[in-house]
Amino acid sequence: MLGAIEAGGTKIVCAVAPKEALTQIAERISIPTGTPQETMPKIIAFFKNYQIEAIGIGSFGPIDVDPSSPTYGFITNTPKLAWKHFDFLGTMKKAFAVPYFWTTDVNAAAFGELKHGSAVGNENCIYITVGTGIGGGVVLNGKVIEGKGHPEIGHIYINQLVHDSFEGNCPYHKNCLEGLAAGPAIEARAGKPAQNLAADNPAWELEAHYLAEACVNYTLSFSPEKIIFGGGVMKQAHLFPLVREKFTELLNGYLPISQVDQYIVPCALQDNAGIVGCLALAKETL
Amino acid sequence: MLGAIEAGGTKIVCAVAPKEALTQIAERISIPTGTPQETMPKIIAFFKNYQIEAIGIGSFGPIDVDPSSPTYGFITNTPKLAWKHFDFLGTMKKAFAVPYFWTTDVNAAAFGELKHGSAVGNENCIYITVGTGIGGGVVLNGKVIEGKGHPEIGHIYINQLVHDSFEGNCPYHKNCLEGLAAGPAIEARAGKPAQNLAADNPAWELEAHYLAEACVNYTLSFSPEKIIFGGGVMKQAHLFPLVREKFTELLNGYLPISQVDQYIVPCALQDNAGIVGCLALAKETL
Repeated sequence: MLGAIEAGGTKIVCAVAPKEALTQIAERISIPTGTPQETMPKIIAFFKNYQIEAIGIGSFGPIDVDPSSPTYGFITNTPKLAWKHFDFLGTMKKAFAVPYFWTTDVNAAAFGELKHGSAVGNENCIYITVGTGIGGGVVLNGKVIEGKGHPEIGHIYINQLVHDSFEGNCPYHKNCLEGLAAGPAIEARAGKPAQNLAADNPAWELEAHYLAEACVNYTLSFSPEKIIFGGGVMKQAHLFPLVREKFTELLNGYLPISQVDQYIVPCALQDNAGIVGCLALAKETL
Repeated sequence: MLGAIEAGGTKIVCAVAPKEALTQIAERISIPTGTPQETMPKIIAFFKNYQIEAIGIGSFGPIDVDPSSPTYGFITNTPKLAWKHFDFLGTMKKAFAVPYFWTTDVNAAAFGELKHGSAVGNENCIYITVGTGIGGGVVLNGKVIEGKGHPEIGHIYINQLVHDSFEGNCPYHKNCLEGLAAGPAIEARAGKPAQNLAADNPAWELEAHYLAEACVNYTLSFSPEKIIFGGGVMKQAHLFPLVREKFTELLNGYLPISQVDQYIVPCALQDNAGIVGCLALAKETL
């Protein structure tokens, strides 16, 4: 059996699946993200019921992914103070002496989509989740991308349109992508939640413009074969044609993207992208 | 002996060096970039004088770096029409049956700086040249980054400041980074060439702001250990403290950058970054 932990800011999902059929999850649990002292014993108890060969962990971040660092495997600068500087990977290793893959939740989701979702058959993809925040993971040449750290591409600066007077609500950067285009930014401008806005509300055109700028930047930076969107905001299916149209205008033929409707696509695994990705990453360690 | 070809839009530099001492270039020539029919025979004649074991090529782009593509090794969508769809690598392979490393000029420069310049001792760096255009190369985990394509990070969108009314002069994207911050943009706003502007001209503060925004985006995308600037505009040494200051403000502590004066740095190899990088890449193939 393979184990998977998708650690999010509000809940932590654990799952086990046979390595021959990763997407056939044998059992899963969802635990509210309490303090590490409350939460880690529940995670460990879950896996004790199985003969686990390897575990993939996709964690909320920022996390330390540099194997040469003394704090490799730690959660670092998170606003969730109980988890700040917590040795997540080390705690797991003490409980189970198996191989681990340690990365971000969004890198895991990108890998899940590559192996079992919208990017099957490709080697390079980006996964972006647009919800209460914006986060992104990157797979290049079949591997999740990590340098000294991991991508934080939800916080890139893009060009704010002149007629958009919203100052942006990212606590770090105000008008970065997350500050201009995550759910709370849409809600702050409109005065009501994004999911209550009609499909013809001009808010969506603005949203599509910002996401399209981000897609141009990701394309120029990583040359993926697919850009895959997930998250609550992207459940608005009418956004996809708008994002594609504006992306094509903004890239303006600089690089060849033959079929934009096959390039900017929804997440196929939906809410399972992260956990399936963690299972697939666990398999990679064997 | 190792061979190197740094193919730029105006000149092509060829060099040979012993593999034990790459930076001790035995001979180099510089050829104006004519048509391929004029230029390639001169390149080939130069290398005929040596026993070459491997050749590294860093070419102006965009180029096809996807080994599974039928046009791998070609220059693709360049405005230099004589070179558009030219099989650069294939032409060299017909002349010399040796191992090749084929990448962009800026990826080669990034690799040169990693091995012999400002990023010695690191595994991850970015090289950005700011001159008549803006281009960038990326090295992650000791390897030049390439997915389906190669980075084109000089053309990313950044946030144009409200008080800057210049429309941008990138022929593809108008107000992308290149369109707002390359030499011609500085000149268009000021009415005279960038190198004639005094160090206290407000143009430099604007320039530093845009380069700092780009540095934030590169940091969030690639988590390099160094961002290395080269190119004509960056010969203005007073730009570096300004870029660092604005970068620190714009990143706002989101990720830890302990010593920004060691993080955003000038190119150490100066005009040799590309050719030394090509030699170092040639060595990698052995």
